[in-house]
Amino acid sequence: MNLILLYTSDFTDDKTVVINDRRFHHIRSIHQPEPGETLKVGLLDGNRGTGEVLSLCDKEITLKVALNQPAPEALPLKLILALPRPKMMKRTLQTIAAMGVKEIYLINSYRVDKSYWSSPLLQPDKIREQLVLGLEQAGDTVMPEVHLRKRFKPFVEDELPAISQNTRALVAHPYHANPCPAASAEPSTLAIGPEGGFIAYEVEKLKECGFNAIHIGERILRVENAVPVLLARLFPL
Amino acid sequence: MNLILLYTSDFTDDKTVVINDRRFHHIRSIHQPEPGETLKVGLLDGNRGTGEVLSLCDKEITLKVALNQPAPEALPLKLILALPRPKMMKRTLQTIAAMGVKEIYLINSYRVDKSYWSSPLLQPDKIREQLVLGLEQAGDTVMPEVHLRKRFKPFVEDELPAISQNTRALVAHPYHANPCPAASAEPSTLAIGPEGGFIAYEVEKLKECGFNAIHIGERILRVENAVPVLLARLFPL
Repeated sequence: MNLILLYTSDFTDDKTVVINDRRFHHIRSIHQPEPGETLKVGLLDGNRGTGEVLSLCDKEITLKVALNQPAPEALPLKLILALPRPKMMKRTLQTIAAMGVKEIYLINSYRVDKSYWSSPLLQPDKIREQLVLGLEQAGDTVMPEVHLRKRFKPFVEDELPAISQNTRALVAHPYHANPCPAASAEPSTLAIGPEGGFIAYEVEKLKECGFNAIHIGERILRVENAVPVLLARLFPL
Repeated sequence: MNLILLYTSDFTDDKTVVINDRRFHHIRSIHQPEPGETLKVGLLDGNRGTGEVLSLCDKEITLKVALNQPAPEALPLKLILALPRPKMMKRTLQTIAAMGVKEIYLINSYRVDKSYWSSPLLQPDKIREQLVLGLEQAGDTVMPEVHLRKRFKPFVEDELPAISQNTRALVAHPYHANPCPAASAEPSTLAIGPEGGFIAYEVEKLKECGFNAIHIGERILRVENAVPVLLARLFPL
């Protein structure tokens, strides 16, 4: 937790917050601050800044906060991701949030096991839980939006053209693809397939929608590595 | 498992292998091949190629192999990594192997909890297990070498100068650092600290040894993401 994410409900007046939940226990066991010390804090969907420890007891911590720094820059990216297997889902959501992606579509694909769609991890509060962990790790405050799309064809035909319009539209695909292009800050849409990749029909549908197939070398990476590698290659620091 | 890793002990003659272990169960349940189909195979520390299914029964699979393609290119990198917490250790080793790192030093650092060094995951066969999973995932055959160095100072003073000699020597550090340099295929040594980073003394020691501090932006990433991001930024496709 490199940033304590604050909610408006934490505030007792416009500069004071009292925390007594998971964040409090983390602060007490890991940061172990003394009164007068400052912690990095940020208001959900707002500014970052510092929180000076006013008091700390067994039950809660009181901070005086100053929020004067904007959130780190977001990636200009809409990420289209075939729904990962539940085991990878948590980590992948954390990674995506930590790296600054703000718009995510989890979509179906032929090789996505139907059972994944019944995972309790897809409940909005469970998704949010993982996104919060990613933001706290990276020091970000802006909550990404996650959209679930259980049907590939209607999504790609009816919705994707508007999503990817006027963006660099790319689909990561290891076969018959061009090398990943150079880093650029231009608005982009990136589609990443499931384990085993999109099937030929799906790649074809994405190409019809203006997507270019790109690869990141001959090594096949798991989605949890492919995501950070692709984001690192596609966008400048 | 995008490549079935073969050992010389699997061979019954110079072109035939019989497999009946974890790999066999994976092939039977995931690939489900019919006789005559081919699978991607590779000989440990040797060539890659194809394995034609000669027969498949409840207990074993017999393949006729042709090994005519070299392993994918390795990264020209020596990776110095503060020992990760055991929970992250498995995944990190898999990632490192999958991405083509062949020389790894797991070192101590002030912020490495002493208990991590007693983890059973540091047994050579346990380390090897994770590296094999990474190679199988990426389609590589060449086993990385992992060295454990439990004392920071003697390692940096006595051993590191020879390791990093004539390489681009970099330490990933979020503070007082230059932006990560452009991708280059030159031989490199990269040091990555523990959660919370190297302490100032350690960074200083690395700098004395010729290391330049670099950062990858203001977002603080967990080691499992920092590794793929750094490797993707530092080396061309």
